[in-house]
Amino acid sequence: MPEIQKIDLAITGAHILTIDEGMKEYNPGTIYITGNRIVWIGNDTEQPENCKVHEKIDATGKIVMPVFFNGHNHASMSFLRGLGNDLSLDKWLNDFIWPAEKVMINPDTVYLGTMLSVIEMIRSGTGIFSDMYFFEDQVARVCEESGMRGIIGEAIFDFPSPSRATPAESIQFTRDLHKQFINHSLINVSVSVHAPYTCSPNFIRQAGELAEELDISANIHLAETNNEIETIAGLYGKSPVQHLHDLGFLSERTVAHHSVYLTPDDRQLLKETGTSVVTLPNSNMKLGSGACAVGELLKSGINVALGTDGPASNNHQSMLREIQQLARLERVVNFDPTSISARELIRIATINGARAYRLDKDLGSLECGKKADFQIINPDQPHWYPRYDPYNSIAYAMQSNDVESVIIDGKIVMLNRILVNIDEMRIFRELKKKAGMLF
Amino acid sequence: MPEIQKIDLAITGAHILTIDEGMKEYNPGTIYITGNRIVWIGNDTEQPENCKVHEKIDATGKIVMPVFFNGHNHASMSFLRGLGNDLSLDKWLNDFIWPAEKVMINPDTVYLGTMLSVIEMIRSGTGIFSDMYFFEDQVARVCEESGMRGIIGEAIFDFPSPSRATPAESIQFTRDLHKQFINHSLINVSVSVHAPYTCSPNFIRQAGELAEELDISANIHLAETNNEIETIAGLYGKSPVQHLHDLGFLSERTVAHHSVYLTPDDRQLLKETGTSVVTLPNSNMKLGSGACAVGELLKSGINVALGTDGPASNNHQSMLREIQQLARLERVVNFDPTSISARELIRIATINGARAYRLDKDLGSLECGKKADFQIINPDQPHWYPRYDPYNSIAYAMQSNDVESVIIDGKIVMLNRILVNIDEMRIFRELKKKAGMLF
Repeated sequence: MPEIQKIDLAITGAHILTIDEGMKEYNPGTIYITGNRIVWIGNDTEQPENCKVHEKIDATGKIVMPVFFNGHNHASMSFLRGLGNDLSLDKWLNDFIWPAEKVMINPDTVYLGTMLSVIEMIRSGTGIFSDMYFFEDQVARVCEESGMRGIIGEAIFDFPSPSRATPAESIQFTRDLHKQFINHSLINVSVSVHAPYTCSPNFIRQAGELAEELDISANIHLAETNNEIETIAGLYGKSPVQHLHDLGFLSERTVAHHSVYLTPDDRQLLKETGTSVVTLPNSNMKLGSGACAVGELLKSGINVALGTDGPASNNHQSMLREIQQLARLERVVNFDPTSISARELIRIATINGARAYRLDKDLGSLECGKKADFQIINPDQPHWYPRYDPYNSIAYAMQSNDVESVIIDGKIVMLNRILVNIDEMRIFRELKKKAGMLF
Repeated sequence: MPEIQKIDLAITGAHILTIDEGMKEYNPGTIYITGNRIVWIGNDTEQPENCKVHEKIDATGKIVMPVFFNGHNHASMSFLRGLGNDLSLDKWLNDFIWPAEKVMINPDTVYLGTMLSVIEMIRSGTGIFSDMYFFEDQVARVCEESGMRGIIGEAIFDFPSPSRATPAESIQFTRDLHKQFINHSLINVSVSVHAPYTCSPNFIRQAGELAEELDISANIHLAETNNEIETIAGLYGKSPVQHLHDLGFLSERTVAHHSVYLTPDDRQLLKETGTSVVTLPNSNMKLGSGACAVGELLKSGINVALGTDGPASNNHQSMLREIQQLARLERVVNFDPTSISARELIRIATINGARAYRLDKDLGSLECGKKADFQIINPDQPHWYPRYDPYNSIAYAMQSNDVESVIIDGKIVMLNRILVNIDEMRIFRELKKKAGMLF
């Protein structure tokens, strides 16, 4: 008689969208999880024998798909959400964001602000985010407490940051974080360079070398606004992309955020070096920056992922809204309703993020052997009817609240809209108190 | 002793955004309703004496504001939502929408499809919609059963419609509807001309005259795509706006939908005649049509309202998403984050709709004497924290599900997310059955 396999968690009866290479579906389908990994996935009728299931979720009538991968965030800036909107970027930064950051950024507020964003992310089906900010050890703490997966990156630039006095200190801190979290199941570390216009060539080069030495990803704001293009042209006589390339910063480990203003030569460089792009449509729209030519990037063979950006410039944390925004923005800038498909959009929001950060061996799709990171969606809502194609419903009509449960690293972090590890009301209360004290 | 006044319904403790001319707020505030009208509104501390309150909702900590006014819809097209997306407009219409409409459009499907959209609208805070489609008597039936407010308009064009054999019949049917619903508290009738390119000059003129004779609004799709501009230029040697003006169709009773492609002369004509524009950002984006220059229209002094369009080209029915989309679209096309403010956006989605359809004496803001149409919003959600300004939270971060209760015409139609007059699950089941039979 074969040995009995112990299954920690089983999901059955679901319409499973695996988002694997062939976009395979199982309906009704089953996922078996042991520890933090998927040990079996397939049709309900083909469940393996000799399995002893510890905990089971009956997901009949539900849709199961990978969690969304939020490719770029400044999560703790939720603190500043709604502060001085409807202003020019200059005024907003000079009169509101920077003075506020000076007063408020400390380990406590970073912890609290990140926790708030993590609440919002989990509630809308996001299971991993890449963060660039200060006191990133606090972001790691939030991940550990909430069960969220995070890629943490202490922002590096040429001024004293609220957390570190010099860029050299930020680089050293990145090294320390890497050491601390190596082999951590939930936390990865990335080298986070703020932007070509805030960081000297010397430190950009050092940061790129650090990423290579530690064999981790590096990420940077790149070609976000026309201002930046002019600044870098004035300083170095070239495009920001060319500038980074000449400093050896672009490679398969590099993730470029925004990339709204690219020349054909820039695209060619990104493609040749294997650099990924994270597009942030709602942030680019809200700040009036412009539209990233996602269709062109995809056609060039560049890996494009998706993110929310920080809550202060968006103003939300739902990847679903980014998917739905990208769908519409891409169509209107091209005057073409065929310019991007629902299936492409959902790959951009899941597996492409994992690929950008070189985590696709473990994350981004539901396959046997991968980590168990997925969401259970309840489509019994008016906007889901009729349902000719689930990808279309997700890309155009689904709402964030339709996410019923979220499993990360094999563990249930939200069950039937209840967050398992977080006392939301306490976070809201503390946040109200802190924000009220500041303004 | 003064007479005791009977109050049917009182809302207390709320942060009330009246959206009146001065954007007055009461916090905490009270609304007293008798019959279908607001008989008192003010601060909690100033409640009038000698009132006997029949039913009371304690809205402490909640936000109360007018329901959203959905200025343009084809509500029953929810039946076709998600059918053949990601296609060119031609292919989508020829291979999917038109064949499907031939098979499916009958009084039963119009009733069912409209009911589905009404469920979605109420659930996201909309309390009135303007509808252009077929079998509009069924749309009126849905309004009466659900408690929703509707402006119904039987589509007039030069081909046999699914409901009427000739445009003359559609015009006669509009006359009949007007007679039937005159003085109905929930239902208004509008003359709905499909578009300049589907309706002969003769019938456009007749339709305009009918609106004038009955003293009701007239509405039409106008300058939606570049194709239309070229077609009308070819047929009549002028712009669609000029064409309608020459036919006497434009006036203060006229509402023009889309208006993406306007010349400065067109804008001048709209302004001079007092024509209102309904902008439909998500639909224009999803179909790749273009962006309506809302800022320019407002600067010209044109009244701009907002709508969802039909669920087949959107694909949802939440006005909140239109507000948030307009905020972003306007900013990105102008490369300017100051181009539209949160307060303007919320006026566009409420009082401006009422003004467009000349219903602002009764609707669109919360004032003593006006009809009691408002929503109660629960801001105790992560995306509402912190809350520096409620208009900003609504315009950028709020989610449709935050709408907790909806009152229309003085009657509670949704209480704590439960629809009072509609058996949702029955509607979902029937819709599934009917959609399944067709495809």
